[in-house]
Amino acid sequence: MEEATPVEAISVPPIARIGDPVGVVDTPSLVIDLDTFEDNLRKMQALVERHGVALRPHAKAHKCPDISLRQIALGAQGICCQKVSEAVPFVAAGVRDIHISNEIVGANKLALLARVAAKAKVTVCADHPRAVEALSAAMAESGACVGVVVDADVGQKRCGVQTPEQAVALAQLIQKLPGITFAGLQAYHGAMQHTRCASRRRKSSARVARLVRTYLRALSSAGIECPVVTGGGTGSAVFDVASGVFTEIQAGSYPFMDAHYASLEWGEEVSFGNSLYLLGTVMSTPTAERAVADVGLKSTSAESGAPRPLEQVGWSCVGISDEHTVLQAGHARDLPTLGAQVRLVPGHCDPTFNLHDSVIAIRGQVVEAIWPISARGLSR
Amino acid sequence: MEEATPVEAISVPPIARIGDPVGVVDTPSLVIDLDTFEDNLRKMQALVERHGVALRPHAKAHKCPDISLRQIALGAQGICCQKVSEAVPFVAAGVRDIHISNEIVGANKLALLARVAAKAKVTVCADHPRAVEALSAAMAESGACVGVVVDADVGQKRCGVQTPEQAVALAQLIQKLPGITFAGLQAYHGAMQHTRCASRRRKSSARVARLVRTYLRALSSAGIECPVVTGGGTGSAVFDVASGVFTEIQAGSYPFMDAHYASLEWGEEVSFGNSLYLLGTVMSTPTAERAVADVGLKSTSAESGAPRPLEQVGWSCVGISDEHTVLQAGHARDLPTLGAQVRLVPGHCDPTFNLHDSVIAIRGQVVEAIWPISARGLSR
Repeated sequence: MEEATPVEAISVPPIARIGDPVGVVDTPSLVIDLDTFEDNLRKMQALVERHGVALRPHAKAHKCPDISLRQIALGAQGICCQKVSEAVPFVAAGVRDIHISNEIVGANKLALLARVAAKAKVTVCADHPRAVEALSAAMAESGACVGVVVDADVGQKRCGVQTPEQAVALAQLIQKLPGITFAGLQAYHGAMQHTRCASRRRKSSARVARLVRTYLRALSSAGIECPVVTGGGTGSAVFDVASGVFTEIQAGSYPFMDAHYASLEWGEEVSFGNSLYLLGTVMSTPTAERAVADVGLKSTSAESGAPRPLEQVGWSCVGISDEHTVLQAGHARDLPTLGAQVRLVPGHCDPTFNLHDSVIAIRGQVVEAIWPISARGLSR
Repeated sequence: MEEATPVEAISVPPIARIGDPVGVVDTPSLVIDLDTFEDNLRKMQALVERHGVALRPHAKAHKCPDISLRQIALGAQGICCQKVSEAVPFVAAGVRDIHISNEIVGANKLALLARVAAKAKVTVCADHPRAVEALSAAMAESGACVGVVVDADVGQKRCGVQTPEQAVALAQLIQKLPGITFAGLQAYHGAMQHTRCASRRRKSSARVARLVRTYLRALSSAGIECPVVTGGGTGSAVFDVASGVFTEIQAGSYPFMDAHYASLEWGEEVSFGNSLYLLGTVMSTPTAERAVADVGLKSTSAESGAPRPLEQVGWSCVGISDEHTVLQAGHARDLPTLGAQVRLVPGHCDPTFNLHDSVIAIRGQVVEAIWPISARGLSR
């Protein structure tokens, strides 16, 4: 093995400084336009309030406590996390009401859950008697208590109990065991969030609501009170809030939006603007119609497609690889020049946030804040 | 904004400890099987040595100095990085010969490049006279010196000069300007690495070699000596080493392989085993044929497709989302049970490494080392 000779350490300079004009921000970087972001926050809060439903925004979308604190300040009643470890930096930042919208299985995770539950009101999902028994044993052993939400599969075909009878049996088991309490029902249909046609999303939301009613009737017939029905997302929120079954909405992407969400049809009642983009630099202009930006798979998620330009421009993104996005223009005059900054909307916001250590909050053309993405990489 | 009340901090425990049996490693986690990994390292080094070519493995694949040091110890003459910031932790770990196989444009990056070049022998790519002038100005100003490699587009249709005449003009400019020296030619064709059919990869490699010869003849006719021709990758290395034009091979994925590379046809001369996998836990078994593992887009890159089981098993991965992989079995008896660990090969190794803070090196069934992925997130 090569012997490491001691050298004066070089450190990578900060990606930006507060007060910087956007033109000197290093790239690739993740940027939020604060005016659009704040407008989105207010719109969703107003939407849920018009319908008397609570907002519990999903923090898995951004993994950034500064963002959750702003949502809570506007009226959100807490947050969702998707993993136990993801909740840790939010608790550290002062969030005290967290729903972990996912099944938690395994001794390491249950031990951490007990520690988180000692600091905040925590609910967690379950869909299996053995998982409920393990939750109870771990909480009882450490003297903690968590609320357990029965996760129902309402069409996502992923996790969740398959029938109202299974939900009742699980709720009864939860009620019987120490260290846990029955906290409600989760009915999340992620796939329908991404259906292009708004009227089909409306129909899917109605189908979910009908299914939830069969679960609620079964619980009620068994004498089990269901205090919470949690679910919904950015694509279906406008329908879910009016369904009459949800007590809280878990939407996560609405503060930012992304190229995928922007490609959906939206109705009249509410629309959200693209506040999130990747700032890139053109690092090659090899032909008259082709330029290459320094944004790749390590700074934007591409399983939902390549990023798109934020503005109407004369070029488009025609390919993405590990470290490059290829831009192509119909006319040479429309191509950005070598060294120019470009603004690209990521295909999918959630995994894109997870690639960055911080997000740069810009107002006008100036860096107003740099928010750490503290839960980046916390997927356990 | 909610007031953060002081709480005793909770920290996320380490993902594994040296000496742990693999069964207690937390999930999702990135794992290397050391026996297969070391075998892959030796095979590639032997391949290049049989053909008298140097190996300069690409560190963008893993971003982990512990891995580069092992490659250098076996005979690699240095490493490639793709970004200036990516090089910083490798310099800190003692690597002293780094080729940045990419165009570097922008004042922030040039300033950092000058600092890196003060600590190690550094070469960098260029494909535009303005970029060369900026490189020269930045190096001259700080008293540093870098070698500049002319990047030629040999079919990738991304960056790079388009003709031998452009290459000659750029090399002449490099020779003329202070702070930089002409260091050679880069001829990397990333796309051909991923062609399924080995005989088509052989033909593509031959086409690249013919094109490189036209560049070398043009440089030679202009009286310019070209000390290095760098390029090649895991998919084409076996052909590139025998082409007679490359002085060094940049392959990065061969120590690990991934589901995509495993799906290619391989010839007889060399084959590499899958040493890299994601360890996941089954956190839901909602139906007799369906299970869900806790591995999602935040722990494995999926733009090249969902992960695949490491072993021959009776289930397959039928879907992936932010935090879940859905497993499906033909027969209920083949489905892994709730809480079981599963081993999944990522679709694409490079962006998958970039999602993890460390990789767990396992020998047999025991954790032998935990290597920090120190350049994770360093995409500037």
